[in-house]
Amino acid sequence: MPCFAPAAPDPTEQPRSSFPELIRKKRDGEKLQDEEIRHFIRAVSRGGLQEGQLGAMLMAIRLQGMDPDETLVLTREMAVSGRVLEWPPSWHRLLVDKHSTGGVGDKVSLPLSPALAACGCKVPMISGRGLGHTGGTLDKLESVPGFNVSQSPEQMRCLLEQVGCCIVGQSEELVPADKVLYSLRDITATVDSLPLITGSILSKKAAEKVSALVLDVKFGSAALYATLESARGLAQNLVSVGSRLGICTVAVLSRMDGPLGQRVGNSLEVLESLQCLEGRGPADLRELVTTLGGSLLWQCGEASSVGQGAVRIGAALDDGSALRKFQAMLQAQGVAASVAQALCTGTEEQRYQVLGRARTQEELPAAKDGTVQRIEALPIAQVLHKLGSGRTQRGQPINPHVGAELLVMEGQRVAKGSPWIRIHYDTPELSDDQRRALQEALVLADSEPFTPSRKVAEFVLPQGSRSLEDLMGEKGLGDSRALLSST
Amino acid sequence: MPCFAPAAPDPTEQPRSSFPELIRKKRDGEKLQDEEIRHFIRAVSRGGLQEGQLGAMLMAIRLQGMDPDETLVLTREMAVSGRVLEWPPSWHRLLVDKHSTGGVGDKVSLPLSPALAACGCKVPMISGRGLGHTGGTLDKLESVPGFNVSQSPEQMRCLLEQVGCCIVGQSEELVPADKVLYSLRDITATVDSLPLITGSILSKKAAEKVSALVLDVKFGSAALYATLESARGLAQNLVSVGSRLGICTVAVLSRMDGPLGQRVGNSLEVLESLQCLEGRGPADLRELVTTLGGSLLWQCGEASSVGQGAVRIGAALDDGSALRKFQAMLQAQGVAASVAQALCTGTEEQRYQVLGRARTQEELPAAKDGTVQRIEALPIAQVLHKLGSGRTQRGQPINPHVGAELLVMEGQRVAKGSPWIRIHYDTPELSDDQRRALQEALVLADSEPFTPSRKVAEFVLPQGSRSLEDLMGEKGLGDSRALLSST
Repeated sequence: MPCFAPAAPDPTEQPRSSFPELIRKKRDGEKLQDEEIRHFIRAVSRGGLQEGQLGAMLMAIRLQGMDPDETLVLTREMAVSGRVLEWPPSWHRLLVDKHSTGGVGDKVSLPLSPALAACGCKVPMISGRGLGHTGGTLDKLESVPGFNVSQSPEQMRCLLEQVGCCIVGQSEELVPADKVLYSLRDITATVDSLPLITGSILSKKAAEKVSALVLDVKFGSAALYATLESARGLAQNLVSVGSRLGICTVAVLSRMDGPLGQRVGNSLEVLESLQCLEGRGPADLRELVTTLGGSLLWQCGEASSVGQGAVRIGAALDDGSALRKFQAMLQAQGVAASVAQALCTGTEEQRYQVLGRARTQEELPAAKDGTVQRIEALPIAQVLHKLGSGRTQRGQPINPHVGAELLVMEGQRVAKGSPWIRIHYDTPELSDDQRRALQEALVLADSEPFTPSRKVAEFVLPQGSRSLEDLMGEKGLGDSRALLSST
Repeated sequence: MPCFAPAAPDPTEQPRSSFPELIRKKRDGEKLQDEEIRHFIRAVSRGGLQEGQLGAMLMAIRLQGMDPDETLVLTREMAVSGRVLEWPPSWHRLLVDKHSTGGVGDKVSLPLSPALAACGCKVPMISGRGLGHTGGTLDKLESVPGFNVSQSPEQMRCLLEQVGCCIVGQSEELVPADKVLYSLRDITATVDSLPLITGSILSKKAAEKVSALVLDVKFGSAALYATLESARGLAQNLVSVGSRLGICTVAVLSRMDGPLGQRVGNSLEVLESLQCLEGRGPADLRELVTTLGGSLLWQCGEASSVGQGAVRIGAALDDGSALRKFQAMLQAQGVAASVAQALCTGTEEQRYQVLGRARTQEELPAAKDGTVQRIEALPIAQVLHKLGSGRTQRGQPINPHVGAELLVMEGQRVAKGSPWIRIHYDTPELSDDQRRALQEALVLADSEPFTPSRKVAEFVLPQGSRSLEDLMGEKGLGDSRALLSST
């Protein structure tokens, strides 16, 4: 009999007898019953569970897994652990959202939400903050003076009525179980668990009550999953569980080796988003925005194919309607009218005046002649993180002006000594080690110039979806047969 | 990017970066380095770790295991996580202790400690409380009015000087890491982990600074391990790690299907211990006391064989010297002299007057004629637990008078209608379901009477130990060849 000192029982504590048994079942690889998962998730959000029990259960789930039925119940119970958004019935079909598994330079949400709103959709987008090397949409938007990400469900409804889209932080009232689980997964090496990732992503979308959802699942050296195959596993799981939750769900597998677009860092990404909203900017960013948006328009019945939807999104970028929605959203979420106008209609210099700018812009020269084989996103993100663009712990302040502009593109020839990247920073100064790490991110070779591959590698559709031709339409998305996968 | 709300960082928190990495290593089945285990255990006892991280690490260890080197370092680091006991050099060889993995009716420590002291040993026994269906030595002793289990290391030294033995609770200063780990294992389904059990048991013995240790590892239907084979695995692990810690360690595998002795319940077990200390009482209890004590006398060099040691322990029980040590220990640990004397020299009735007695004693009749094939300990313990003899949560009060007396023995004939068990209880009343459960604990068959098998099934010795003949001696322990196992 191991020894222990007696401790007074906590009278507020619920009877704990069944939680050790639930943990034991999962530890031994048994399937949890619906009622057991419900009991567990209620305790997670209402506090009837010790944190240590939660840590043990998360590890048991990480090591023993959950089958699709368990994952569905987990997700559904998380979704109803707090308040659920409600919308006028006339909006239902039009409610759409996008989620990305996170990447370097991924500012897709900023142009995509207003572009979808310009096409008649309602987009109640709930986003996250950056942690680690990936950026967060909320941090990017908060580099705009006055932008307020804290919006109650009532305010969100107002924003969707007035503008058609909003980008907000997760309210305390929504999916409290996810908050508890997510903060613990982060410190217990249980982030990369398929059922836990699925539950975390889809519970929030289910609580948003959207009818269509597109998921941008990244793969590559700067993504959660290194390979297409592992990312496909998550994508199939998400599409399957999302569909069973009653959400029309499609996943897109997209490359995340080099940064998305040419700018990385919070305020710099706002600038690039504005370019995209003006119909300009990098091709890879526009590709993702139009593909993801096109899929959503197809999913919610506003386009007859993804291809046709992509064309409509492209048009909203080109004709200024998406930019006007963005300007309206900024104002509706607290940005002064003059600031919103300067940002959305001003020159790049006027935009810098609004957003501010780091004290130092340092350009690094290419070490030799060659063709850019690739630009590694991860070392760039890591250096920027150290320079203050990201946080190591939640709640840390960040410097919105720290960032990088890529001055060259994949496949292009560069000459020795010509600048290839411009780093924006205040303090600390760029160290020699950091300069070296950045230089190694530029991979040059003595080869012919080439056209970089598209970002989107594959679509994952729910079982029983319409045919490939329906999906892609006449104005297809290029090599469409290679793009299709199914759960 | 999953969403979360920002939270202010805790400035008292140590940098957490390395704990998730340690958890990840164990999650992935990698071996932890000595320094990593040290870092982890220091954080456990000093509080640099979130409880959820600890829960996750315990589950990772439970599912992925630890090799002997990791277990050794874990145990050693736990042992030095707090204060370590110190003794006069002249005592060193004589410092001995026993540990049992817990069983129903296991009151061995009560007669064994004073018997060893009567044979010249020093026994700084640190015991535990009951939780679940197994009893705790401290609870049993606390049914003696005035007995104080809280003794500082200084007081323990005094007790060992004056009496030669003591039975105390784990001081707050000793092995704090074990307290933290143990209390969490209990609620996270990580109790039955070989390295964690080994660490918990041996860290306390290492902190006691004993030179010889005997482990009573139970197997059977009312034990932690159901089979001899699984119990042997723990025993071999304990003997191997104990030896590498510099403690001469032997394990004894003993049966735990029926209760040990004829009495179960805190004050009833004190009464039976007194019978044993008078050279009387049940044969199986005396067998275990003399075998475990005999082994310790052999291990510490006070006997030339276990057999000879067992004879010496038996003599200490028979000649009253062990009982006098027990009386001295009671007094030294706070029991009034008159109470200690009444208990140790009085009649059974006088002993009941000192200890008190439950309001109701109810005898259950045998349902049919037959030979007692076995008496199942687990259902009896479970009913007594419900009647108030045990606790479900730490700190709960218990009723020391609740218990059971077995009125028949394994192998004996009983007649239908004759009483076979006497239940002592106050409130709640014995329910019909409980009566039924108790009746099912008595397994009768129409066979010849038989002699019950011995409790001790096997010895587990460290590698390179002396020969079987040395171990058992001329006055052996019966069928000694069958008893031997080695790590």
